[in-house]
Amino acid sequence: MAINYQLILDSIYEEVKPLLAKGRIANYIPELAKVEPRQFGIAVYCLDGRTYAAGDAEVRFSAQSVTKLFGLALAFSREGDAIWKRVGREPSGNPFNSLYQLELAKGIPRNPFINAGALVIHDILAQRFVQADIAILQFMRTVAREASLDFDPAVWHSEEQTAHRNYAIAHLMKDFGNLHGRVEDIVRGYCRQCSIAINCVELARAGAFLANHGTVPWDFTRILDPSSSKRLNAAMLTCGTYDAAGDFAYRVGLPAKSGVGGGIIALVPGELAIAVWSPGLDENGNSLAGTMALERFTTLTARSIF
Amino acid sequence: MAINYQLILDSIYEEVKPLLAKGRIANYIPELAKVEPRQFGIAVYCLDGRTYAAGDAEVRFSAQSVTKLFGLALAFSREGDAIWKRVGREPSGNPFNSLYQLELAKGIPRNPFINAGALVIHDILAQRFVQADIAILQFMRTVAREASLDFDPAVWHSEEQTAHRNYAIAHLMKDFGNLHGRVEDIVRGYCRQCSIAINCVELARAGAFLANHGTVPWDFTRILDPSSSKRLNAAMLTCGTYDAAGDFAYRVGLPAKSGVGGGIIALVPGELAIAVWSPGLDENGNSLAGTMALERFTTLTARSIF
Amino acid sequence: MAINYQLILDSIYEEVKPLLAKGRIANYIPELAKVEPRQFGIAVYCLDGRTYAAGDAEVRFSAQSVTKLFGLALAFSREGDAIWKRVGREPSGNPFNSLYQLELAKGIPRNPFINAGALVIHDILAQRFVQADIAILQFMRTVAREASLDFDPAVWHSEEQTAHRNYAIAHLMKDFGNLHGRVEDIVRGYCRQCSIAINCVELARAGAFLANHGTVPWDFTRILDPSSSKRLNAAMLTCGTYDAAGDFAYRVGLPAKSGVGGGIIALVPGELAIAVWSPGLDENGNSLAGTMALERFTTLTARSIF
Amino acid sequence: MAINYQLILDSIYEEVKPLLAKGRIANYIPELAKVEPRQFGIAVYCLDGRTYAAGDAEVRFSAQSVTKLFGLALAFSREGDAIWKRVGREPSGNPFNSLYQLELAKGIPRNPFINAGALVIHDILAQRFVQADIAILQFMRTVAREASLDFDPAVWHSEEQTAHRNYAIAHLMKDFGNLHGRVEDIVRGYCRQCSIAINCVELARAGAFLANHGTVPWDFTRILDPSSSKRLNAAMLTCGTYDAAGDFAYRVGLPAKSGVGGGIIALVPGELAIAVWSPGLDENGNSLAGTMALERFTTLTARSIF
Repeated sequence: MAINYQLILDSIYEEVKPLLAKGRIANYIPELAKVEPRQFGIAVYCLDGRTYAAGDAEVRFSAQSVTKLFGLALAFSREGDAIWKRVGREPSGNPFNSLYQLELAKGIPRNPFINAGALVIHDILAQRFVQADIAILQFMRTVAREASLDFDPAVWHSEEQTAHRNYAIAHLMKDFGNLHGRVEDIVRGYCRQCSIAINCVELARAGAFLANHGTVPWDFTRILDPSSSKRLNAAMLTCGTYDAAGDFAYRVGLPAKSGVGGGIIALVPGELAIAVWSPGLDENGNSLAGTMALERFTTLTARSIF
Repeated sequence: MAINYQLILDSIYEEVKPLLAKGRIANYIPELAKVEPRQFGIAVYCLDGRTYAAGDAEVRFSAQSVTKLFGLALAFSREGDAIWKRVGREPSGNPFNSLYQLELAKGIPRNPFINAGALVIHDILAQRFVQADIAILQFMRTVAREASLDFDPAVWHSEEQTAHRNYAIAHLMKDFGNLHGRVEDIVRGYCRQCSIAINCVELARAGAFLANHGTVPWDFTRILDPSSSKRLNAAMLTCGTYDAAGDFAYRVGLPAKSGVGGGIIALVPGELAIAVWSPGLDENGNSLAGTMALERFTTLTARSIF
Repeated sequence: MAINYQLILDSIYEEVKPLLAKGRIANYIPELAKVEPRQFGIAVYCLDGRTYAAGDAEVRFSAQSVTKLFGLALAFSREGDAIWKRVGREPSGNPFNSLYQLELAKGIPRNPFINAGALVIHDILAQRFVQADIAILQFMRTVAREASLDFDPAVWHSEEQTAHRNYAIAHLMKDFGNLHGRVEDIVRGYCRQCSIAINCVELARAGAFLANHGTVPWDFTRILDPSSSKRLNAAMLTCGTYDAAGDFAYRVGLPAKSGVGGGIIALVPGELAIAVWSPGLDENGNSLAGTMALERFTTLTARSIF
Repeated sequence: MAINYQLILDSIYEEVKPLLAKGRIANYIPELAKVEPRQFGIAVYCLDGRTYAAGDAEVRFSAQSVTKLFGLALAFSREGDAIWKRVGREPSGNPFNSLYQLELAKGIPRNPFINAGALVIHDILAQRFVQADIAILQFMRTVAREASLDFDPAVWHSEEQTAHRNYAIAHLMKDFGNLHGRVEDIVRGYCRQCSIAINCVELARAGAFLANHGTVPWDFTRILDPSSSKRLNAAMLTCGTYDAAGDFAYRVGLPAKSGVGGGIIALVPGELAIAVWSPGLDENGNSLAGTMALERFTTLTARSIF
């Protein structure tokens, strides 16, 4: 019997409403702090092309760290396993912007989903493309089939003003020889990358190729071979949700990548991609209502990978 | 078309033979150091009851940390989510026996698969059962359908002689109030637990209930409800292979638990449990040939969860 | 013009009275928690034999970590620089009972004044003497010229009950091969050592040989040669007051060793030894009123070593 | 009987000659790596005005971290204890350029002699003076009575090229709100400060006011009051020689500040200041022959403060 996804999304929207007042908006980027907190969107893109949505699923939000996933996919598609010489793939066990592990590991970030790792991935792309930020934007436009995706200049400028920790991370990696571009260029490009705005419907569609073993489902463009696509999903599951990867896997049981803008993209391999968004964050920096919505989704549909 | 598992296991056995001379035998437990290194076993238990095996699949080896999985399943089946008050479920990002994180976290182990966490689980069981070590043994006998499973006194005594780090961990947790039993009792019981001997065929069978959503496949005994079983699998995937969980998920893509005796149990949810054994370890303490065998298995059968 | 020490001690006593209600009694050793907090003693032993005292200078208190100084002096007098193979002499930069640095340093304690270091010194003495705790007691009786000094069984038993962290430290060092005796023997002996009771007059006298370049001033017994005595004083200055050695040197400017019983022994090389006691501790575990009294003493007498 | 300092310095020079080939030149600043290693200078400035020197005591070298002492003295003379709100005074227990402790301490450097602390002191001076680097240079010219002291542009430019770790440190402190000026300005100013060139005779004279309780001995200019001068000396002793303060106090027993250019300034309070220089460093970054020379000096003159 087919699952009625629309019914499930509507029901989840009702369930999470009491959570929307809770959670903490990311306030270290002043521009993000201005977002109205009581918003929630959810969208599912099934690999057969059907799309379901509820709530504010067409309101764009700041993708932030969710862009790390697309930067990684792009770099992995071009460089293959060579990227793992410059970044690890182990969970960090520490806050996402910690300098401690980076110093102990002599400038090799623990994984591509912490800031240090995303800066290295940006640096790898900057060696291939004229502008890495634009390369990531174009890639997201392609896999989301949505040419209007763009940077948000207000967020990007706000982010550049407060990027001291990212500068610290980048200079430390430069000191260890694990950053090839100029520190200013990489950090500024990374700030622009993070400022890409997207909505849940677009984000679910953008993630579809990862649920489809690396191939865009509507035009059969192969971004990654099936094995690489699985490996990327494995990295998402173990490292994609900051210092809460274990808890997230326990509760939700899907590969996912979250951002401090409140968005999360998650995958049911072979079936669908799902995107949620709600600005209020839990103590780990993941969307409070968004995480709960995904937990309810896997419970109601029995769609965990485990 | 059905997969010919026997052919695959035989082929894997041939492939890994060159690796058997490599790897490092765990030498901090003198008794384990005596094991002949060039051994390798592999066994698959399909949920329909068919079993396949190759190599030294009926030679018993020291289960060691693999018993942590069964201790956890037993404790979880009795106490439910209450266990998470005393132990976390995040990857550690540090060697399996580190005291550092334990001190920072005020005596709450990072997850139940590092030694500190397994000691807490043992302590939880010791409050319920007359002897926690015997409770775990009986549980393993039940889920493996094999009454002859037993402790190996030589290993157990050898382990007690060299248990100083486990004593350090246990005393530190006692100091923080997260160990209720006597330190000596818990550490000794844990040493006995680790000494349980098992072979690949038995181990694959013992893991079948976790592949079968918590229910023993041959007699329908429910050990865990489906949701709990999935959650346990999620914890295995993110934390089950020491400090290499990210790499293991990336390469193998299955929930798994390894031990320094060289054994690994892994699960394809809804389909099968697979056990491998080879004494030589890689630098993370996982069986070198065993990990490679599992990587080949998921590649040849396309059976990753991702 | 001679300094009127009696006047100065009396004046300091008046000055610190408002502080006696403040400070926190060490409560992790239940027996110590019973001490009446509003007590304060101070005594000076000049190398010419004159003694000055004020307040509760003849009330005995638990010497605790102050005994580490005498254990170290005894071990150093017998083993010389060989002790530095097993213990460092750098300030710790971490709380006195931290396991983190010990693990990083592979079981070599940072200095002889943190618990790990004192346990190693105890272990060194235990290889030389039938009972290290009694050897330290006898040594203190000798240098204090006071045969009635003794262990306090109530404190000692209380300490043994709560020695889990010391057990953790000792087991970790045993694991690294830096403890030769049995863990139980060393930790118990160390608990007894810490329980030695002494008063300010006795303690000032006991420290006189360190102010006198290693020679007991009244009978010219050479405990340490002048160079070794200076080196011990240097180690006291940089490591003697837990994680506050820098602050203590800045404020007081004298080599000193403190204990959680509230006692402190300090030295003006070539002139005198001074002992203070008050049970209330500051956040670093040093006597609050005692530290202030020493700061006033060096200010009023202009007797800093700097 | 008066000490024949000239004889002692000459004798020390002979003694350390075999060490001059040993030691490692600081190579992370390319310009410093060009220095001829087999040089050694030593100079003593007695408070009565007599000066003694041996070896290459009039060859200028790069003062590097030795300038931290003069920056601190200048800031302390103007701001007093207010500086301790922004920088601690505890030994670090970690390499001099570690980011770990800085992150744990939320951007408050452990002491003013590690790079992070010196950057904060530079920032404090930058709020008072048009250019902090020039203020420090002028101050050193004054206390050394030597108007020709100057920056070395080659060193300064070389240092700016390789200042990534200092940029990382400064950005991290900026992120925590403990740096008021622009990161670029502070780091560049600090690089210039470090490039000041000086010789042993000048350096010994420059340190004389700290041996003289804060007052310049030849013209009675009070830089610091006696109590502040003592406190500065105490901070030098506990924190002045990188991660080897305990060992240095143990061996040498004098307050001292070293630099990676191979220079060290040390003080015998009330008597003299002594400067040594030799480019080869030990594993802690202190001059190998210089430290040995100071150890011999305190042994031969019995001039330790302990």
